[in-house]
Amino acid sequence: MTAQDSRRSGGVNQFLDVIADAGLDVLRAIRGRRIANRDIGALGEELLSTRGEASGTAVAREMVAHYRKLDSAERLAFFRILAKDFDADPQRILAAGRTYGEDPTLKNRLLLARAVEAPRQELFRRINTALGGGATLVRMREDLLQLIQDDIALDAVDADLRYLLKVWFNRGFLTLERIDWNTPAAVLERLIQYESVHEIRGWEDLRRRLAEDRRCFAFFHPALPGDPVIFVEVALVRDLADSVGPLLDRSGPILDPATADTAIFYSINNCHEGLRGITFGNFLIKQVVVELQRELPAIGRFATLSPVPGFRRWLSGALDRLAQPLVSDVEQSALRDLLAGPVSETAVMPLQEPLMRLATHYLLAEKRDREPLDPVARFHLRNGARLERMNWLGDRSQRGLGESFGIMANYLYDPRSIEKNHETYVDDHQVVAAARVTRLLPRDLRS
Amino acid sequence: MTAQDSRRSGGVNQFLDVIADAGLDVLRAIRGRRIANRDIGALGEELLSTRGEASGTAVAREMVAHYRKLDSAERLAFFRILAKDFDADPQRILAAGRTYGEDPTLKNRLLLARAVEAPRQELFRRINTALGGGATLVRMREDLLQLIQDDIALDAVDADLRYLLKVWFNRGFLTLERIDWNTPAAVLERLIQYESVHEIRGWEDLRRRLAEDRRCFAFFHPALPGDPVIFVEVALVRDLADSVGPLLDRSGPILDPATADTAIFYSINNCHEGLRGITFGNFLIKQVVVELQRELPAIGRFATLSPVPGFRRWLSGALDRLAQPLVSDVEQSALRDLLAGPVSETAVMPLQEPLMRLATHYLLAEKRDREPLDPVARFHLRNGARLERMNWLGDRSQRGLGESFGIMANYLYDPRSIEKNHETYVDDHQVVAAARVTRLLPRDLRS
Amino acid sequence: MTAQDSRRSGGVNQFLDVIADAGLDVLRAIRGRRIANRDIGALGEELLSTRGEASGTAVAREMVAHYRKLDSAERLAFFRILAKDFDADPQRILAAGRTYGEDPTLKNRLLLARAVEAPRQELFRRINTALGGGATLVRMREDLLQLIQDDIALDAVDADLRYLLKVWFNRGFLTLERIDWNTPAAVLERLIQYESVHEIRGWEDLRRRLAEDRRCFAFFHPALPGDPVIFVEVALVRDLADSVGPLLDRSGPILDPATADTAIFYSINNCHEGLRGITFGNFLIKQVVVELQRELPAIGRFATLSPVPGFRRWLSGALDRLAQPLVSDVEQSALRDLLAGPVSETAVMPLQEPLMRLATHYLLAEKRDREPLDPVARFHLRNGARLERMNWLGDRSQRGLGESFGIMANYLYDPRSIEKNHETYVDDHQVVAAARVTRLLPRDLRS
Amino acid sequence: MTAQDSRRSGGVNQFLDVIADAGLDVLRAIRGRRIANRDIGALGEELLSTRGEASGTAVAREMVAHYRKLDSAERLAFFRILAKDFDADPQRILAAGRTYGEDPTLKNRLLLARAVEAPRQELFRRINTALGGGATLVRMREDLLQLIQDDIALDAVDADLRYLLKVWFNRGFLTLERIDWNTPAAVLERLIQYESVHEIRGWEDLRRRLAEDRRCFAFFHPALPGDPVIFVEVALVRDLADSVGPLLDRSGPILDPATADTAIFYSINNCHEGLRGITFGNFLIKQVVVELQRELPAIGRFATLSPVPGFRRWLSGALDRLAQPLVSDVEQSALRDLLAGPVSETAVMPLQEPLMRLATHYLLAEKRDREPLDPVARFHLRNGARLERMNWLGDRSQRGLGESFGIMANYLYDPRSIEKNHETYVDDHQVVAAARVTRLLPRDLRS
Repeated sequence: MTAQDSRRSGGVNQFLDVIADAGLDVLRAIRGRRIANRDIGALGEELLSTRGEASGTAVAREMVAHYRKLDSAERLAFFRILAKDFDADPQRILAAGRTYGEDPTLKNRLLLARAVEAPRQELFRRINTALGGGATLVRMREDLLQLIQDDIALDAVDADLRYLLKVWFNRGFLTLERIDWNTPAAVLERLIQYESVHEIRGWEDLRRRLAEDRRCFAFFHPALPGDPVIFVEVALVRDLADSVGPLLDRSGPILDPATADTAIFYSINNCHEGLRGITFGNFLIKQVVVELQRELPAIGRFATLSPVPGFRRWLSGALDRLAQPLVSDVEQSALRDLLAGPVSETAVMPLQEPLMRLATHYLLAEKRDREPLDPVARFHLRNGARLERMNWLGDRSQRGLGESFGIMANYLYDPRSIEKNHETYVDDHQVVAAARVTRLLPRDLRS
Repeated sequence: MTAQDSRRSGGVNQFLDVIADAGLDVLRAIRGRRIANRDIGALGEELLSTRGEASGTAVAREMVAHYRKLDSAERLAFFRILAKDFDADPQRILAAGRTYGEDPTLKNRLLLARAVEAPRQELFRRINTALGGGATLVRMREDLLQLIQDDIALDAVDADLRYLLKVWFNRGFLTLERIDWNTPAAVLERLIQYESVHEIRGWEDLRRRLAEDRRCFAFFHPALPGDPVIFVEVALVRDLADSVGPLLDRSGPILDPATADTAIFYSINNCHEGLRGITFGNFLIKQVVVELQRELPAIGRFATLSPVPGFRRWLSGALDRLAQPLVSDVEQSALRDLLAGPVSETAVMPLQEPLMRLATHYLLAEKRDREPLDPVARFHLRNGARLERMNWLGDRSQRGLGESFGIMANYLYDPRSIEKNHETYVDDHQVVAAARVTRLLPRDLRS
Repeated sequence: MTAQDSRRSGGVNQFLDVIADAGLDVLRAIRGRRIANRDIGALGEELLSTRGEASGTAVAREMVAHYRKLDSAERLAFFRILAKDFDADPQRILAAGRTYGEDPTLKNRLLLARAVEAPRQELFRRINTALGGGATLVRMREDLLQLIQDDIALDAVDADLRYLLKVWFNRGFLTLERIDWNTPAAVLERLIQYESVHEIRGWEDLRRRLAEDRRCFAFFHPALPGDPVIFVEVALVRDLADSVGPLLDRSGPILDPATADTAIFYSINNCHEGLRGITFGNFLIKQVVVELQRELPAIGRFATLSPVPGFRRWLSGALDRLAQPLVSDVEQSALRDLLAGPVSETAVMPLQEPLMRLATHYLLAEKRDREPLDPVARFHLRNGARLERMNWLGDRSQRGLGESFGIMANYLYDPRSIEKNHETYVDDHQVVAAARVTRLLPRDLRS
Repeated sequence: MTAQDSRRSGGVNQFLDVIADAGLDVLRAIRGRRIANRDIGALGEELLSTRGEASGTAVAREMVAHYRKLDSAERLAFFRILAKDFDADPQRILAAGRTYGEDPTLKNRLLLARAVEAPRQELFRRINTALGGGATLVRMREDLLQLIQDDIALDAVDADLRYLLKVWFNRGFLTLERIDWNTPAAVLERLIQYESVHEIRGWEDLRRRLAEDRRCFAFFHPALPGDPVIFVEVALVRDLADSVGPLLDRSGPILDPATADTAIFYSINNCHEGLRGITFGNFLIKQVVVELQRELPAIGRFATLSPVPGFRRWLSGALDRLAQPLVSDVEQSALRDLLAGPVSETAVMPLQEPLMRLATHYLLAEKRDREPLDPVARFHLRNGARLERMNWLGDRSQRGLGESFGIMANYLYDPRSIEKNHETYVDDHQVVAAARVTRLLPRDLRS
């Protein structure tokens, strides 16, 4: 038996080992202190010793097991310790900075990099060695994001955790899997639980969403076996769908997929709050388009049927500032009444024209930092999609009426123009929209 | 359709997004310059545009495809560009260091961290989004390590690549799989190719090593599907094996595994030079012990049969410095003759006693940086194993005789004392050895 | 390219080929006639031609597709044709019988065997070559068994179909699979549908039955992929369960399986009416015992908790004939009242003693053809189980009270005595029961 | 727990149960006698008792284990006992025949069927219930076919075994699987072992046959897990291959499959002698054509490159009878010399024209029972293929020269005409051949 690793040359590589072993210092540091709560203390006690290294992953496993048993207060205490005692040391950073300033070698840059990295990062990497460690870190960040509002000092802990998760949840480690009625129940159950756009009402509802004229795809990551990271629900239809009701009707007719010409992405869901800010949607949509082209060559159109979640909130705040030609005085007054009362189909019906006009304006022209104010529009337009159509009463549910008076939008993913649209968007922050959409605006406001 | 990500709070998180998008700057930087070689230039051309982001992983895929076609000179040119033009900017580091010195906030620390990180790291992360991207990075580092000898300036590139691979090849993403005759041929073929301790001489030889009285386990990583990261070969035997010849004899009798009492780890191989310095062996051995305990409760002893690869080399250099009681004058003279001539069983036979004594001394007492000089001893003893027995003519092959006059060592992995041994080793750098080993030393030299 | 089959010797084997090819005659026969209904006619048209043989399995696939579209009347017409026109030919049988009588050679015996076999058997074998052919034949027999009541002439068709299914569904082709929450939803859905002993009330109920302290195993057959043939539900408990209510309570506590000492088989279900009369239960129970012993060595007791489905029906018919010492006059009168009125817990409570005595007598002493009258008792006792305990109000459901006044029985499968019990049963038709069961009988009636 | 089976109606079904249980009689019969050899005797001892039924499949497992240990003489003894003592009883057949003659009811026909069936069939069915039972029966028939030559009385045993295997190995239970370099080594090893048309010379040779421009498909049966029943090797090429040498050259160039227009079936092998006479080849070829059409739509031609194994043997026997216009006197004399001496390329070269003419005549016109004399021709032409081309020196190997002077044939499987060709063949026994083949015949002999 030999250890090929031994053929190591010295120099920088050897130095890197020193950095790598720094984790031991972290663990020793944990040993030196009793954590407030006995159980949290136990976590430290277990992880600190050199036992941890010798036992393979045993101590990391215990750490994972212990963390899962902590209650909310104990978790907060734990995160505060991470924030305070496992932070980077300013004096050390400054000293390393000075050394680098005097002698900017690679070695000194790496020493500075080490000083700048908070020691808790090594702790997180150690936790990840355990079975279920990755899942625990995702859950840990979810807990942290809830607690952070009470304690902005935890921001630094989140920055480190998020950095690591972003590296680990790189697209290269995600696998696309098709979900259907032959998928294990344990996975399907999670879809029911995670769906937040259009609620899945039990197993019969789910079954319809996985019928022959539907497709569902999810990304999975090795750290979360059997637990999707993000999933998208697709309906195969004829023509561009203008209303979500029929797609959600569990007793609606099932279309022969061979006769479909359009794939409608009607729900996309990130599954883990602990992965907030790490984007998968762009990759998912584009790979699913490729999969569908392969399976069903007759499908020539790929589009979403999407909510306009921020429209009503924006209108509430902005109505008073709006003026002709965007809205007439009469319309303004009627809209003021509408915003004041309860929303219903009856209430919105007379105002179709101004609402559609204003919603279009909202999606195309209202920006923040040069990007669309509406989060869904921002997501799809940035991905290279085109705003294809506005749909009056596309969502008659209470939520749909409440968010956008029932208005929905189709964003078109045309494989031939995605890249060009994206470049236009990134370079000029110009939103690409179909003529029938821009025509909804007053002539003077069409760009 | 909605984008849950949009529910983002501002503050540090928003700032982190800015860091994340910095990758775009890298790619823009590549665009601005023609790379020496036309083909390498093409790599840049493809990756630079905002097309890259819009197309999902298409540009990263092209980058991977192009890299694979480069010849050695082009690769060197590519690495030099990475070293020179995608290095961290010292002025920016110093400026960020000053800002942090004046106002040591989290934000300023993260800005410093960003400045310290070389932009090529983002390039590597982008490459990893492609199918096969991870494998390409492993291969890239293998290429780099070969070229680095001619160009020490590439050290910095290696430091970054190694850092990322270390994070990505975290134990948490490795899966243990048993290898046997039902494993796909494409995987088995790689074992033949990767085995470097005791060469596998074709499929019939391999078949014997996967017979009923053998076990083989490997770690796999999602970035290298079907391609093991490390594997270990185990023989199930009665009593502690003292000689590797019978284990390698492809026509040797097959033992009923139910009658075995000992598992001998007789070969462990790291498979990818591109992962050099990232250690898996410790994790592997300990998990395999657990697997074997589960499958075969009658197995009560876990040990290696290992070479002593550095013994002869060390003896060549040290012999003149050695003295009584370690070696007598007569022995010293005879050993000098032995070292001068060709090694053979006949030649070593008369010197069994001094050679065994000196080999034991070499393993237990010869150190560098407080750790054993012999790389195999260093690996196992650090893991918490015990030096259990020295075996005269344990390896009669030309290689075995040449490296250590045929002497082999058994390192014992006793689940009950691994942790204690490891602590003893780490805390005091004291090597744990069985009495029958230390008894080989002169009485005065036993510690 | 060669055909090894060509190395065929002549003689009997060649003769067998003639028999095998007889199928062609069958198909030609179908061609010669129009079947009443146009669609059924089409079936014949498709199958008849030599096209069928040349096209591989294409025609059989069409036959399968057509059969599935037939309505009930068309199926009846189809079966009648099979019964009448594809029956064995008595004249040919008699002639072959005479030839054999004159010259009882192997060849003549095989000719007689061929004459005795109805030509529809070849038709069934041909259908089985199609994808889904086996499933169609199972379904066909299910249809046939429903229609047979109106038309006893179809008995002969059933005899042939059952014979083939029995050969094909030989134990050797069944695979045991564990069912749990990771099983595809499409399979779990069938459990819900097939469970007829203790109804599964939706997915939440099913989830409890697949929790950590439960086991579920099914036999699968290659002809019915994803569709179980038979399954058994097992509860891991402490002590012998005496009541089914707690086992079915979906919010009952979940036991740590490591602390269980008993496995209770509380529901076993044959899934396909088309396989009626082909027994799998004996094989299933015994293999599940082996699986559980392997997984959970602490489980030392294997028993059922079973209904006594025929008790009340038998008592209704037999009460007047019964006499002392089995039942006193007073009890007889009270029981007569009980049988006359609606059954309820309140109504049965006062009669615990005589009902338990009579139920025990019913299981142990009431026979038909020397075997227990009660079908469940007959099944388990024949398998080698022992009647272990009678449970008062073991099943308080309406069905349980209605069938057996709530009385349930435990049958014990003791691996050490199964064979002996079975021999005792088969040789002497003597039922093996525990002392605490026989003690429920009047002293004079204990055997 | 209940047994749904209990809902059995009486009548014929009940009667069928009686037949089914007849197996017990068989086993009892075995008990009554000591089998010559002690070990074979043991087999009987184990199987006879009612223990067998009670223990699930335990006794069948023992039977399987015992059979595998028998030597050749013991097997012969075993088969003789099966032939003599487990044969159908003529007196019982005659009696049942008389009963049926007097009263030809279904019941009496079934009784006659039972009498006609030899009791050993039930024994075989019992053996099949064991794990590995099916494989043992296949092996048993292989043994039997070897022994049968010495003992024609065993024909009857073979007839029964073959009948059952034919029913069990129905196409409906076979699954097609693609074999490639990712297939488990244990399966690939069997290909090497089973290939008898063009020997596979080790793993490197096999690897070439599974390269990118090759396809290999096999049928598997649940009774023989991991052990193919039949497999076919396919080369993807440009144009119709005329020579097998380049296809077998392990260092030949690998064609990009996207540029291939033709699939050449160059080797098809039945794997188990024990399944002799049960045909799979027709089903396999046709399904592989479908698979290839799906995967590679650019492939438009499917053909074999086949030996003409019986040509030389036929010519040896027939040459003297042949005359003009088929062969001239001069040719006849030269051929006589050729047949007398050793075959070599040099020897056959001058006789290309008469040999090609005679080989064509042999394939198209020489018949036995109205079918082609050549077994390979018989197989493909019966399947609906067309004789497409004769290839001079298509196989220059010693075997190829020895069997057919190196001549090979292409049989074309044209999906559009397979059925028509097959009908022509079956109805008229007319062989379909391309014009360029028939043109090789003398004008007067072209049909």
